[in-house]
Amino acid sequence: MTRGSFISFEGGEGAGKSTQIRRLADRLQSAGHDIVLTREPGGSPGAETIRDLLVNGEADRWSPVTETLLMYAARRDHLERVIRPALDRGAVVLCDRFSDSTRAYQGAGGDAPAALIAALEDHVLGDSIPDLTLIFDLPPAVGLARAAARGGAARFESKGLEFHERLRAGFMAIAQGEPKRCALIDANATPDQVSEAVWTVVSTRLAL
Amino acid sequence: MTRGSFISFEGGEGAGKSTQIRRLADRLQSAGHDIVLTREPGGSPGAETIRDLLVNGEADRWSPVTETLLMYAARRDHLERVIRPALDRGAVVLCDRFSDSTRAYQGAGGDAPAALIAALEDHVLGDSIPDLTLIFDLPPAVGLARAAARGGAARFESKGLEFHERLRAGFMAIAQGEPKRCALIDANATPDQVSEAVWTVVSTRLAL
Repeated sequence: MTRGSFISFEGGEGAGKSTQIRRLADRLQSAGHDIVLTREPGGSPGAETIRDLLVNGEADRWSPVTETLLMYAARRDHLERVIRPALDRGAVVLCDRFSDSTRAYQGAGGDAPAALIAALEDHVLGDSIPDLTLIFDLPPAVGLARAAARGGAARFESKGLEFHERLRAGFMAIAQGEPKRCALIDANATPDQVSEAVWTVVSTRLAL
Repeated sequence: MTRGSFISFEGGEGAGKSTQIRRLADRLQSAGHDIVLTREPGGSPGAETIRDLLVNGEADRWSPVTETLLMYAARRDHLERVIRPALDRGAVVLCDRFSDSTRAYQGAGGDAPAALIAALEDHVLGDSIPDLTLIFDLPPAVGLARAAARGGAARFESKGLEFHERLRAGFMAIAQGEPKRCALIDANATPDQVSEAVWTVVSTRLAL
């Protein structure tokens, strides 16, 4: 059996990732693919209990380094119990946030050292790297207004506009640094336009 | 102001660490020292919430790698919020378990890669290494019987005798590998004998 495909969706708050993941899942499912739709932090029962510690509470509840370690604990559990078994049976895994969110939120947005994050990617992920990463980009002010209208996990949204500007720059740097793995998606467009952009990238880059 | 002293207490289950830490704390306090008595996993409000995830539940709730990351998340919070501030004000910090427990429990006892643990010590602890580590040694069968009689955090105790033999060997290897920092204490003796052995090491090695 061939290994499945691993696609991650990244970007700031209110970028419309959830809607687009569902649409892509529907389209791939209609084409006969075995789809696993999951998210981080969380995605497995253990990782969801860690997620509760991460998304609730005061903005400064955890330092960026502690937050990075909690994220990677949740990620490892998610990888072992959900993502790797799904890829091994040939499924397409669509994951709402993955390791780039740690680089952006705790690294670029916080001040977790890049060397720590690189060591974790090395020792904790191993070769479980996404085949394709779609980075949804839009101005933070637009995204935060959308996220506020929707409600939801408030801890990261409460960190202020300057934090979210660093976050956006962090995601941009990832897209530019790894163009073979990553594609930037303009999320400041209608949902249908974004869906088409996503489909173009997925169908061009992956042999699904 | 001079930096305080950092003493960690390590060893398997039922080794009598808690009793001996309290006795040492009393003795140092009587001599006029500012004492901070703390423990891992936990020791700060955030780390205690992570502890709940670690000490409860099924023995295989977390893999050794996930467990290592959770331990280091808790350790980082504990360092930032309790241990470093205490050392900065000149206190003597007595900590029931610290980084050697990760090497022994998740590394030697589990199969968390030594390279991951070394990277975490490097990037997460920095120079926050104990000045002195007392490693309490006794046969696992004796320790587990004591721990069972006492009741308490059952998840690690439930891992079986073979796990606890690897644990003991792991602690031995640490003591032999870092003799300047570590001292082996024979815990298979009366509490008074153990207290005297502890005091001899502490008063000889540290300028308190």
